[in-house]
Amino acid sequence: MSILAVGSIAFDSISTPSGRVENVLGGSATYFSLAASYFAPVRVVAVVGEDFTAEHENVLKKRGVDTRGIERATGKTFRWGGTYAENLNEAKTDFTHLNVFEQFQPHLPREYRDAEFLFLGNIHPALQAAVRRELDRVQLTGGDTMNFWIQGTRKELGETLKLVDVLLINDGEAKMLAGDTSLPRAAHRVLAMGPKALVLKHGEYGATIFFREGAFGIGHHPFRAPALPIEEVQDPTGAGDSFAGGFMGYIASQEQLNREVLKRALFYGGVMGSFAVERFGTERLQTLTREEIDARFQVFRELTHLE
Amino acid sequence: MSILAVGSIAFDSISTPSGRVENVLGGSATYFSLAASYFAPVRVVAVVGEDFTAEHENVLKKRGVDTRGIERATGKTFRWGGTYAENLNEAKTDFTHLNVFEQFQPHLPREYRDAEFLFLGNIHPALQAAVRRELDRVQLTGGDTMNFWIQGTRKELGETLKLVDVLLINDGEAKMLAGDTSLPRAAHRVLAMGPKALVLKHGEYGATIFFREGAFGIGHHPFRAPALPIEEVQDPTGAGDSFAGGFMGYIASQEQLNREVLKRALFYGGVMGSFAVERFGTERLQTLTREEIDARFQVFRELTHLE
Repeated sequence: MSILAVGSIAFDSISTPSGRVENVLGGSATYFSLAASYFAPVRVVAVVGEDFTAEHENVLKKRGVDTRGIERATGKTFRWGGTYAENLNEAKTDFTHLNVFEQFQPHLPREYRDAEFLFLGNIHPALQAAVRRELDRVQLTGGDTMNFWIQGTRKELGETLKLVDVLLINDGEAKMLAGDTSLPRAAHRVLAMGPKALVLKHGEYGATIFFREGAFGIGHHPFRAPALPIEEVQDPTGAGDSFAGGFMGYIASQEQLNREVLKRALFYGGVMGSFAVERFGTERLQTLTREEIDARFQVFRELTHLE
Repeated sequence: MSILAVGSIAFDSISTPSGRVENVLGGSATYFSLAASYFAPVRVVAVVGEDFTAEHENVLKKRGVDTRGIERATGKTFRWGGTYAENLNEAKTDFTHLNVFEQFQPHLPREYRDAEFLFLGNIHPALQAAVRRELDRVQLTGGDTMNFWIQGTRKELGETLKLVDVLLINDGEAKMLAGDTSLPRAAHRVLAMGPKALVLKHGEYGATIFFREGAFGIGHHPFRAPALPIEEVQDPTGAGDSFAGGFMGYIASQEQLNREVLKRALFYGGVMGSFAVERFGTERLQTLTREEIDARFQVFRELTHLE
């Protein structure tokens, strides 16, 4: 079944120890959509400016992404610049020009309203909630957020968390959201805020999914997927959204939602994240094949599999 | 087959957010021996002072550890004090009184000289090398080290690394030793220094074993074991040595050394580390049963196992 993704489209200027690129296509909706497109049909809702050309749109269209929900506004597309130091753990933001993104109000095309899978990328939690409330056939909502919203829009975020089935955030965000430096304790506190499941992304150490007791009828034992030790990470930008795309995409491609599907989804999330960081921007996500993806899934599986 | 462990015996005074203990039995040889004792016979070589009583020795003897290699010297036993902050990641050392450990020269009892498995705990690398060179039937040598030796005794450590088959260190130590902030690159650089395999301990994220190409005849793909998300870590002291004890103990208990054995050993390492941190000092390691250990092994396996 198809997935509706709401988020940002951006032009990124990125410096890492491996090099530098300027104004390459990025944004949460872009990374998510490309990654998810290998598993299920994707529809995207975002806003761009007049500098967003047919060539840019074709990056998404070539992967079959439905771009009718991309709104063209007067002005420039969201631009972000960041620099990663040697350890690649976190980007130092060089600049953020919100441009048309500042006034973003997601408009859902009529054709999108039967969406059954929804991903709420990292935008203002009030907008995330508004999108969710417009849809009445959604089976599963995935969501992301970040420190900026956790600190600045706590109340709105609290409302949104009640509408999100699976929240996907990183360890630092979970600790900040829960106000607890113990990761497992933080996980349980976040689950008490609303989500049925919480995916914690540990960067190069993989990811863990925690379940609220009784959620999805599958017990509450956590499950962990590894990340591949990659020697040459060129650009970590978009790894988290690519993870979410693999995770949600795999779920949407399955007929049932059970524990085994969620486990495999966590592995596919890691797989798509690992591809994303191999090249700058979305380059690697544009030209993958499902065979390459499944081959890496097997590598991930072997990485922790006991006979 | 039995394991010979060389390392420290200490009395630790530890503060964590869960509480405080004073002068409890600790040290690398102690944690290692107790953890390994659930898998294979253990012989220990260490030095203690006059304050080390029969009661202390009985903690090891009750677990069947051969204590004939514990030398009694005039003076006090090594004492260490440390405080863990809320995140429990690293201890701030309050004091280090080396006492009799300062002049430690490992003496191997004649009965220990047929040792086939050897663990070189975190002591001066020149002493580690001397112990290894005294033994001529060793099949597998495991070793540990720390930042202090990496920075202060680099040359001696380089010689020791050529004698160690499996080096077990944490991520920060590997990065320092290799002079590289990329973990997989650091791993390969460390392997080029001598060890056939490198176990990187990632704390709450588990551990990864990297192999030198051709080592053990098992290919060079890394393998990763998860760690259990534990809500209440009481005291992280000794987790690394307990990991090493589970890892080496399981290997010594097996007839063959192959890839599957090394994989399971990595899981058993994580299992013993997870038990160690549940209580202060060695308390939890003193009263385990093999059934409890194997039950947790299954939990660890389930944590990442895909059907």
